[in-house]
Amino acid sequence: MVEGTKVRVGILGASGYTGADLVRLLVRHPNVEIALMTAERKAGMPIGDVFPHLKNLNLPDLIGIDEVEWPAVELDVVFCALPHATSQEVIKGLLHETKHSLLDEMIVETTEDLASSFQGEVKVIDLSADFRLRDVDTYAEWYGREHGAPELQHKAVYGLPELYRDAVKTAALVACPGCYPTAALLSLVPLLRGGLIQPADIIIDAKSGVSGAGRSLKEPNLYVEVSEAMHPYGVGHHRHMPEIEQELTVAAGTNVAISFTPHLVPMNRGELETIYVKLTEGQTAGDLKEHLASFYADETFVSVLPDGVMPATRMVRGSNNCVLNVFEDRLKGRAIIIAAIDNLVKGSSGQAVQNMNIMLGLEEVTGLEQVAMFP
Amino acid sequence: MVEGTKVRVGILGASGYTGADLVRLLVRHPNVEIALMTAERKAGMPIGDVFPHLKNLNLPDLIGIDEVEWPAVELDVVFCALPHATSQEVIKGLLHETKHSLLDEMIVETTEDLASSFQGEVKVIDLSADFRLRDVDTYAEWYGREHGAPELQHKAVYGLPELYRDAVKTAALVACPGCYPTAALLSLVPLLRGGLIQPADIIIDAKSGVSGAGRSLKEPNLYVEVSEAMHPYGVGHHRHMPEIEQELTVAAGTNVAISFTPHLVPMNRGELETIYVKLTEGQTAGDLKEHLASFYADETFVSVLPDGVMPATRMVRGSNNCVLNVFEDRLKGRAIIIAAIDNLVKGSSGQAVQNMNIMLGLEEVTGLEQVAMFP
Amino acid sequence: MVEGTKVRVGILGASGYTGADLVRLLVRHPNVEIALMTAERKAGMPIGDVFPHLKNLNLPDLIGIDEVEWPAVELDVVFCALPHATSQEVIKGLLHETKHSLLDEMIVETTEDLASSFQGEVKVIDLSADFRLRDVDTYAEWYGREHGAPELQHKAVYGLPELYRDAVKTAALVACPGCYPTAALLSLVPLLRGGLIQPADIIIDAKSGVSGAGRSLKEPNLYVEVSEAMHPYGVGHHRHMPEIEQELTVAAGTNVAISFTPHLVPMNRGELETIYVKLTEGQTAGDLKEHLASFYADETFVSVLPDGVMPATRMVRGSNNCVLNVFEDRLKGRAIIIAAIDNLVKGSSGQAVQNMNIMLGLEEVTGLEQVAMFP
Amino acid sequence: MVEGTKVRVGILGASGYTGADLVRLLVRHPNVEIALMTAERKAGMPIGDVFPHLKNLNLPDLIGIDEVEWPAVELDVVFCALPHATSQEVIKGLLHETKHSLLDEMIVETTEDLASSFQGEVKVIDLSADFRLRDVDTYAEWYGREHGAPELQHKAVYGLPELYRDAVKTAALVACPGCYPTAALLSLVPLLRGGLIQPADIIIDAKSGVSGAGRSLKEPNLYVEVSEAMHPYGVGHHRHMPEIEQELTVAAGTNVAISFTPHLVPMNRGELETIYVKLTEGQTAGDLKEHLASFYADETFVSVLPDGVMPATRMVRGSNNCVLNVFEDRLKGRAIIIAAIDNLVKGSSGQAVQNMNIMLGLEEVTGLEQVAMFP
Repeated sequence: MVEGTKVRVGILGASGYTGADLVRLLVRHPNVEIALMTAERKAGMPIGDVFPHLKNLNLPDLIGIDEVEWPAVELDVVFCALPHATSQEVIKGLLHETKHSLLDEMIVETTEDLASSFQGEVKVIDLSADFRLRDVDTYAEWYGREHGAPELQHKAVYGLPELYRDAVKTAALVACPGCYPTAALLSLVPLLRGGLIQPADIIIDAKSGVSGAGRSLKEPNLYVEVSEAMHPYGVGHHRHMPEIEQELTVAAGTNVAISFTPHLVPMNRGELETIYVKLTEGQTAGDLKEHLASFYADETFVSVLPDGVMPATRMVRGSNNCVLNVFEDRLKGRAIIIAAIDNLVKGSSGQAVQNMNIMLGLEEVTGLEQVAMFP
Repeated sequence: MVEGTKVRVGILGASGYTGADLVRLLVRHPNVEIALMTAERKAGMPIGDVFPHLKNLNLPDLIGIDEVEWPAVELDVVFCALPHATSQEVIKGLLHETKHSLLDEMIVETTEDLASSFQGEVKVIDLSADFRLRDVDTYAEWYGREHGAPELQHKAVYGLPELYRDAVKTAALVACPGCYPTAALLSLVPLLRGGLIQPADIIIDAKSGVSGAGRSLKEPNLYVEVSEAMHPYGVGHHRHMPEIEQELTVAAGTNVAISFTPHLVPMNRGELETIYVKLTEGQTAGDLKEHLASFYADETFVSVLPDGVMPATRMVRGSNNCVLNVFEDRLKGRAIIIAAIDNLVKGSSGQAVQNMNIMLGLEEVTGLEQVAMFP
Repeated sequence: MVEGTKVRVGILGASGYTGADLVRLLVRHPNVEIALMTAERKAGMPIGDVFPHLKNLNLPDLIGIDEVEWPAVELDVVFCALPHATSQEVIKGLLHETKHSLLDEMIVETTEDLASSFQGEVKVIDLSADFRLRDVDTYAEWYGREHGAPELQHKAVYGLPELYRDAVKTAALVACPGCYPTAALLSLVPLLRGGLIQPADIIIDAKSGVSGAGRSLKEPNLYVEVSEAMHPYGVGHHRHMPEIEQELTVAAGTNVAISFTPHLVPMNRGELETIYVKLTEGQTAGDLKEHLASFYADETFVSVLPDGVMPATRMVRGSNNCVLNVFEDRLKGRAIIIAAIDNLVKGSSGQAVQNMNIMLGLEEVTGLEQVAMFP
Repeated sequence: MVEGTKVRVGILGASGYTGADLVRLLVRHPNVEIALMTAERKAGMPIGDVFPHLKNLNLPDLIGIDEVEWPAVELDVVFCALPHATSQEVIKGLLHETKHSLLDEMIVETTEDLASSFQGEVKVIDLSADFRLRDVDTYAEWYGREHGAPELQHKAVYGLPELYRDAVKTAALVACPGCYPTAALLSLVPLLRGGLIQPADIIIDAKSGVSGAGRSLKEPNLYVEVSEAMHPYGVGHHRHMPEIEQELTVAAGTNVAISFTPHLVPMNRGELETIYVKLTEGQTAGDLKEHLASFYADETFVSVLPDGVMPATRMVRGSNNCVLNVFEDRLKGRAIIIAAIDNLVKGSSGQAVQNMNIMLGLEEVTGLEQVAMFP
């Protein structure tokens, strides 16, 4: 992309917390013009009425997704922050309309084909879970419905840049990872790839702020229910499980099942994962740490902390950073990996922007330079 | 104890959060008269100046521990909420002074001897860690100093009433468990005793409110550091580890080492433990649950929740209750046990009062009937 | 009431936060048996499913209000924690049904008449706003609908015990004050009655925790919206205004209008009011303080703090207490009164229980002895 | 200043929350190079050890202020975020050293003289209270000590850019307003200048997050003391009073005394002021609003919200914005002005950067484009 030029970006589902954080980041991105924002119940409203912190930013009003005049709006990039299931339908339609049904006619066999077919066409970055699971049967099993766009699924690239940067570069459809998978995979994939830990008995104890639950009106999300309290949820059946397992399986080269237990913590943003792993013969916690440090040596957003420093969510609040560390376990042959991210940034909107930068050939850090905010 | 009568109670170290919660409970206990409260830096102050929520309760002023006129004060029960290490010195002195050096002369071989020797004498309930570890070498290793009262150590009873009620009944010196050990042991001991879980690879991921850190002036305890954030601490070397291992070892009949990782959560009170265990051959999560339900069937303060209901700290806030549940793990042969307590009540002051009730032959629930407070 | 006996109590609307706090208090009240609890959407559920902190308390299941068999249930006291407007209908029906339409026929001219007419009949304690405003036109103006039970309105006693204890004693229908009026009136009425402050230009800046907004699913009550933030609401038109003005007008003997601005603060419980007043000629802040101290000298639940001590919500959390203090204003001829209560207790459920105690001739403090909970 | 060039900036007192927020903003400022950061107790440490969220930013280590080699370090701008009283000494010394005692010799009568005298010299932006009060006697009265640099005091410009932009442009020493004064003066000065409100009986009820109290280890700043609670402090004698009065007096052209009561709210950042004013004859709340809207029409950082929209701290969190609105009071002849800022940004570090931009002739918004962060 030529410096100084701007791409026209649309945000589908801008009235949720993820959408709001996308706006926060994109409105200051030097190469972006936010040309379109949609909402459902809040269609017709200025974004500043829905999110007063986004007032006075010269943004277009929210419109209903049905009101979008697709080819005419001439978007270069679409961020899709819609609820699960909706994304598949919308993205399917969107690609047809914006590409004049090109997809129907062409035969796309490889990622490279797809990429080329999208040349000059809209790029789609999906923040929902709709295109994260490569196996449509697994999707059906965990989401309780048939996949709505199986023909697109195998074209989607899993958008965890530190692990799949090359594929993202040429992707036309990127499925951004869930927040929990992001922290888990950044911690585990390099170690499984390198054979430093065993693929069996991986236990992920995850803790998240409340914004991950979205802005929907549910009793458990009320202030009074959450404040001064904490509890686990979705034990044994959280939908981020198959996503984590899918990627760990690829990394390990063997089927991986995990134990994964998320907890709700009284904070707006932030996610911490405490991961209990078994070392392979001869490995130590120090080896794991060194391996991760080396793996992420050139990465801007992932860093391994000095010995003994605990990852804490306050270190990354509002930023696209992930901080990691590895600790010896008192149990012989085990180690503990701890990772912290901001669930709305590296766990969602920030990572989406990072993917966009890669897809457009921009510096990966563009628009993501925010220093974490503490206090 | 004859109904209607009152015992004279002293609280050593009443100016900390644990002390304050002891006062909250004891001042409404129908069989208690708070006759003495000590503090160090705040000696000389009315308790209502140190803790304004304790104003107007007709309590004695705080005095320095050196000012106590020991035999004259005629205490029946002493709660010792002093910092670690201090307790050993103070309790040693206290038993000598109040018992006219009786302990020096007599030979006490068994708990029964000790109990009888204390007949009519002061009963001591220690809330510090000073008498929790039966092995004085382990104490020295973890606390970095020699045990200051080894001659008293083997007379101390580990005061987890649901597991050691009979011993507590006749004890003269009770060492109340730490908050983390309380939730862990209530979850695990019955299962190890019953052989339902393996003693290997027990992983305890613990989360606690901030009051557990006490009222001391440390940067990590400042509001701004804690609010909207979370992080682990003491990974691999928290002092509650040897205490948990000691009791699990007894329960399992074999040496048990654990993985234990505590986390600080932005809330005042509350503690949640997510415990990952391996089943023994043929057992299921359901079996574990049934076993725990049966074990605690007659207990007032410990209950196993209905299937699928998540223990949450808000269920027990301000009360002496512990709620438990067991969940299938996605990993074959594993289960997840979740326990919630209020760290200041069942994890500290409430349990101390429960111990007192048992030692005095009162109804165990006396003074502990508070319904949990939510919101 | 004879000691040891129990009255049968019903709670209409037990599934809200106010209802839950009523249960917390009443279930430990020695003279109460909770015989009935109703709910709307949650009818049919055990209370322990709606509020897990209320599990295992041997309480009846929630039923729909239409399912109540009114005379048969034989209630002595009914607490009505229903939404505004609903209360009028329900209480009207309830008094008719339980009293066999007696009210229709009789002519009740004075509070004494009414009291005698209720002798042996159900006593009603309403926690809604439905019977607080004596003037039905004012009700209609502020609540946007006609009063639904004007014939009952003038029989209702405004249940602020410290100000209207005698009337409450003989009342059959008590309208408990709103949370904001409670703190405001306890601060101001004695001063206006005594002529120490001017009735003009009274400014009340009020701050409340979120539980006051109830458990209803509204976006502004979500954790993420409230946490780490604060804002005013209802500026110039909050419904507690006319209620405060009504009582101040009585106290002053002249029409009083007030400036009242409530704010939402990120906490579950607690309410603080900072009240700016003009002194009458010759008065000082010290005089005000002395007057209040003397006025409340014999009160259990209201206390004036020592000089310079700031009322804080943490002093009263979970208790029925109100703490007050008076400060000199830098502006000549002015003073600042500060009051703190727990909005759910003295501001609602606790005060309702206090009223019940008075109506039944019990010790006023019965069941309300809880020490404030801090931390 | 020529675009693309960078000034060398020093931050004295970088280890407090204000210092940290300065770093957050300045490290991304395109025209700034942070060349020096000092700390006292934490001298010698990398900033990333003191504030882990500031890791990996290529910043110099913290050094003791005595270690600074003043002329050699060649700073263009010094931000002074030191404790009160210290600033006067340090700045006096600093100006002498960096200017080779020039100040001692020259006679500076007017702001213009001073500005010219500083030409090419270091510019000092003080975030403490040390140079805010023009009258050194008032300083002595409120701060309990003689002013340490009276010869510099009359050269200091009060750095509220929206009110004193022209003076700031040419200033060599800017005293940044306190956080409370910032919100109060932005609300009141235009109205007093315009004669729309009366200078008598101005009442400011202020609420602040905890970061305003700094990172010092004091019991009232502990998480447990603050969380789930609120209280007023400094009633009648807060040090921001004389500062507000000084500026209101200038604006009104007559002596103004105010009523000012700050409250501590459980949040990290954010400040809200509810200001009660008397209108001058013939004015309405609408007039006030219109006047403010017009006054701030061209301002980037101050905006008046649409009718009825409540200023809320979450609208400005992390940003340099101030949002205002005006409401009719129920009391005739009165109005209520509400203002919200982030106490650490517009109330401190952001405003300091804004002043720097003005002093250097940069676009005022440079480095301050951050969108507010919500959630």
